[in-house]
Amino acid sequence: MQKRISELVKWMKQKDISASLLTSTANIFYISNFYTTPHERVAAIFLFQEEEPFLICPKMETGEAKASGWGFEIIGYSDTDNPWELIQKAFQKRNLNVNTLAIEKEHLNVSRCENLQSIFPNVKFESLEEIMHELRLIKDEKEVSLLREAAKLADLGVEIGISAIKEGRTELEIVAKIEYELKKKGVKDMAFSTMVLTGKKTASPHGSPGLQDIRKGDLVLFDLGVVLDGYCSDITRTVAYYSINEKQKEIYDTVLKAQLAALKECKPGIEIGKIDQVARDIITKAGYGEYFTHRIGHGLGIDVHEYPSMHAANKNLLKEGMAFTIEPGIYVADVGGVRIEDDIIISADGAEVLTNFPKDLQIIK
Amino acid sequence: MQKRISELVKWMKQKDISASLLTSTANIFYISNFYTTPHERVAAIFLFQEEEPFLICPKMETGEAKASGWGFEIIGYSDTDNPWELIQKAFQKRNLNVNTLAIEKEHLNVSRCENLQSIFPNVKFESLEEIMHELRLIKDEKEVSLLREAAKLADLGVEIGISAIKEGRTELEIVAKIEYELKKKGVKDMAFSTMVLTGKKTASPHGSPGLQDIRKGDLVLFDLGVVLDGYCSDITRTVAYYSINEKQKEIYDTVLKAQLAALKECKPGIEIGKIDQVARDIITKAGYGEYFTHRIGHGLGIDVHEYPSMHAANKNLLKEGMAFTIEPGIYVADVGGVRIEDDIIISADGAEVLTNFPKDLQIIK
Repeated sequence: MQKRISELVKWMKQKDISASLLTSTANIFYISNFYTTPHERVAAIFLFQEEEPFLICPKMETGEAKASGWGFEIIGYSDTDNPWELIQKAFQKRNLNVNTLAIEKEHLNVSRCENLQSIFPNVKFESLEEIMHELRLIKDEKEVSLLREAAKLADLGVEIGISAIKEGRTELEIVAKIEYELKKKGVKDMAFSTMVLTGKKTASPHGSPGLQDIRKGDLVLFDLGVVLDGYCSDITRTVAYYSINEKQKEIYDTVLKAQLAALKECKPGIEIGKIDQVARDIITKAGYGEYFTHRIGHGLGIDVHEYPSMHAANKNLLKEGMAFTIEPGIYVADVGGVRIEDDIIISADGAEVLTNFPKDLQIIK
Repeated sequence: MQKRISELVKWMKQKDISASLLTSTANIFYISNFYTTPHERVAAIFLFQEEEPFLICPKMETGEAKASGWGFEIIGYSDTDNPWELIQKAFQKRNLNVNTLAIEKEHLNVSRCENLQSIFPNVKFESLEEIMHELRLIKDEKEVSLLREAAKLADLGVEIGISAIKEGRTELEIVAKIEYELKKKGVKDMAFSTMVLTGKKTASPHGSPGLQDIRKGDLVLFDLGVVLDGYCSDITRTVAYYSINEKQKEIYDTVLKAQLAALKECKPGIEIGKIDQVARDIITKAGYGEYFTHRIGHGLGIDVHEYPSMHAANKNLLKEGMAFTIEPGIYVADVGGVRIEDDIIISADGAEVLTNFPKDLQIIK
């Protein structure tokens, strides 16, 4: 925690930032180890160049904030307190001249920004995002080990899901089975709404599971992940139930080929856009370019979608310690969709694939 | 949908607002029936006084947007498109003079607001929150019926949880069991992370379930809800396992007394703050005032926490169609916590309690 605070303070000094304000669950957790989801309430950490930082959160969460290891001031407020007044007092106590305040522009909402403006009428706002993305972009050893463990549980989730496939079972029954078994193993939260889609519904990359039941000849798509000690996993596998037709098989083979080719490119120094391009070229050559409607992947960490964004126009280079997904997909209405997704960490000279559930076409009988 | 759009446009005309921008999942759903959780991507609806509205969302979700019943323009963008450019084009096409733009100040982040500022350099921003809260505050018949059904599933969740209590079972095993059975019944999403706490952990109002196992003499607290067709439920029940000590029983009796007293006050015309006060007085007189660390409840609807905020300082009056929770609690470290929560709809002359799981002290053997 101390090292991360120091890095941020170093940046503040370079940029002449008087104070930094962290407000997202992920950034608060990254800096303090306090994992809070305060809904519509305010939770925030203020950091300064010289003075001690402070954390403000609902009174009922101050115990957990302390227990998480945050060793500095914690200001708790009740539902009838105005947290902005308490923030103002905390600043007055420190007797600080705040010229420039770095905020999470992609998280802080306009209303809260207006509250800050009324406390600091002449303050200039800078964006905290770039430095936080930069810090969080490269995972340290402990983070890698949590991502690895989270990925193993994602593998297990797919395994449970596939063994639960049975004619007539609904998508939601399979979701329930997966989450039940994972929670029994100690998983507290899924990284996102577990997706099990069958039949034509697989053609919708963001579809949601319902009472559709599994029938012979269906593709069945699993997209799931867990949160382990704050870190996410995210895997997708697609299998066929009972049989597969030619078109579905062509789609499967194309996606798998694209996915393996993209994985092969992953190593330090490669331009991120190229990873997307390699997969997209294969899919386009196979005649399915227009059916691959999303980027090749997304960064993975405390947030299930974070930096780097693995899209075709990203000119940044891969570096050791970057974590992300590789997940090409082809979605054809009335035929079905296939997506295959793994979690990756860039290593010193290549990449470690964290999710290891088999990818060869499986026809479940 | 059309009626809600008309109400909003009426307000825009009154306030001389050129355009309104909806960005939150809940408000987009309220206006369009399209339930989208686009993560870090942009999804938005723009409404105008005279021109047709448009919806912009990731390309892969346009099919669902259409299927949800949105009958106006849908602009889909890929991961390499800049959605702000597409928004600008859509405005140019409409040839509109935008002087005042109403935005969700409590949702729209500073970065997106800056994007809007660069498209409309001289625009004045107004807040959409007040009118959206006002529209959503009073539930119509269809909403009430969904809240009622969602509440029944919450009752069922508690019933499943209580029957799963067994010495040595962990909190997470019980969470898993509850969600498994609910999902088998077709529940797609829980309204929030299901909470099952046992023993001393019940003293933490926002604690999270883990590998703590149930032991004789524990209080066991359930706080859970489901989302049904976009509407949430939220129930809390606390039971004792095997036996209860005097202190725990005193706390239970006090919370129940406070909860029943608060419920009794719920009818049109009553000041909201009074509901909190009635419960707080009972708890304070019993000597536990400092251990009731949160407001008496929160509004309930598309969001699990919405308006009205049921806190002591709220001077607004209850009106027919308002939906909210009543959930006093007492949390004493090393003894345990008790919270009892119901979902309420204000009716023409009183209140309908939507959650009906029994509240008399249960000692599970």
